[in-house]
Amino acid sequence: MVTSRSAAAARPGAASLRRRGPVLERAILEATLDQLGSVGWNGLTMEGVAVGAQTGKAAVYRRWPSKQDLVADALRAGLPTLDEASDLGSVREDLYEVCRRLRDVMYSKPGLALRAVLHECDAESAARFHSLIVTGVVEPSARLFRAVLRRGIARGEVRADADDDLVVDVIPAMMMYRSKVCVSEWVDREIADLVDRIMVPLLRP
Amino acid sequence: MVTSRSAAAARPGAASLRRRGPVLERAILEATLDQLGSVGWNGLTMEGVAVGAQTGKAAVYRRWPSKQDLVADALRAGLPTLDEASDLGSVREDLYEVCRRLRDVMYSKPGLALRAVLHECDAESAARFHSLIVTGVVEPSARLFRAVLRRGIARGEVRADADDDLVVDVIPAMMMYRSKVCVSEWVDREIADLVDRIMVPLLRP
Repeated sequence: MVTSRSAAAARPGAASLRRRGPVLERAILEATLDQLGSVGWNGLTMEGVAVGAQTGKAAVYRRWPSKQDLVADALRAGLPTLDEASDLGSVREDLYEVCRRLRDVMYSKPGLALRAVLHECDAESAARFHSLIVTGVVEPSARLFRAVLRRGIARGEVRADADDDLVVDVIPAMMMYRSKVCVSEWVDREIADLVDRIMVPLLRP
Repeated sequence: MVTSRSAAAARPGAASLRRRGPVLERAILEATLDQLGSVGWNGLTMEGVAVGAQTGKAAVYRRWPSKQDLVADALRAGLPTLDEASDLGSVREDLYEVCRRLRDVMYSKPGLALRAVLHECDAESAARFHSLIVTGVVEPSARLFRAVLRRGIARGEVRADADDDLVVDVIPAMMMYRSKVCVSEWVDREIADLVDRIMVPLLRP
């Protein structure tokens, strides 16, 4: 009987017997992101993911009945979270920090994969992945920007009527637009310019 | 011999003998936009376009060697032009007017087709259609916004340092972002809000 780790890894069936529950699930989700990065949505197969995760196809299908379900879960699980915005003492510093976090989500492996998938898949899957962008990126980043604005208003740094849906969208809109149109990757200096040349004048009391 | 117009129209070969040069070209380009609207990039064929334009396939291929060339020309020819920005006496009115024109381009038949095509075609075609958005929509609208800002600075309505690449991008960025994320169609009231709640505070001296 083969017992060494590397031999088990070379025999998918044996490996799948050893990893269970969350460990195996994480391996499958990671293999899914890898596949998306290398062969895209159209090239991705449940079989390819199983091979990548060194498990059997049945282990994948048991958890995810379709490719759409699997990819949605892989993207959701992989996206960096956008929870609380740290209070750095000024609206300028706080915005800069939230922008950098949003940029890191946009250019993370799952963030890039999510945008690529949207351009490749059929309309039904696109609607599902679009809602993933909304719940995983758009809504959490809007909450962060709103928290920063409210702290700024409380400090007297920001005009009171800037707590506004449209104002909250300016940074994500600019980041999406310039990454598409100017192929900007939002290096730190560009983020600082966005804060200083757009947000500071827009928010001043 | 059949000579009436309607009978000629019913016989594509005969019709193509009668229309020449620009008239036939316009019919082919219009049929291309119709096909894009009904069957999309993947469904569009040179043959389908020829049938729609009531001409022969050879008449299409003689002018456009590939589907990509044909679609690019149809989109370019169909997009409403964004030339001079009228001077309505205030930056607020001028911006409102340019926004409405940009909205009308985005939601024109070729504008909608252009965005739809980008999601359907291969990478090489996408690069070409993307450059069409840049030269046909992004650059002309940036020129209009810049002209409006400069007039506002000359009038003393707008701070002098607002003649800035980033500032020029705010409106197109917001229009693209909210049309994607919130499925906004930018009715006139929303455009007025964008001008009053974002641009006016951003630009004031």
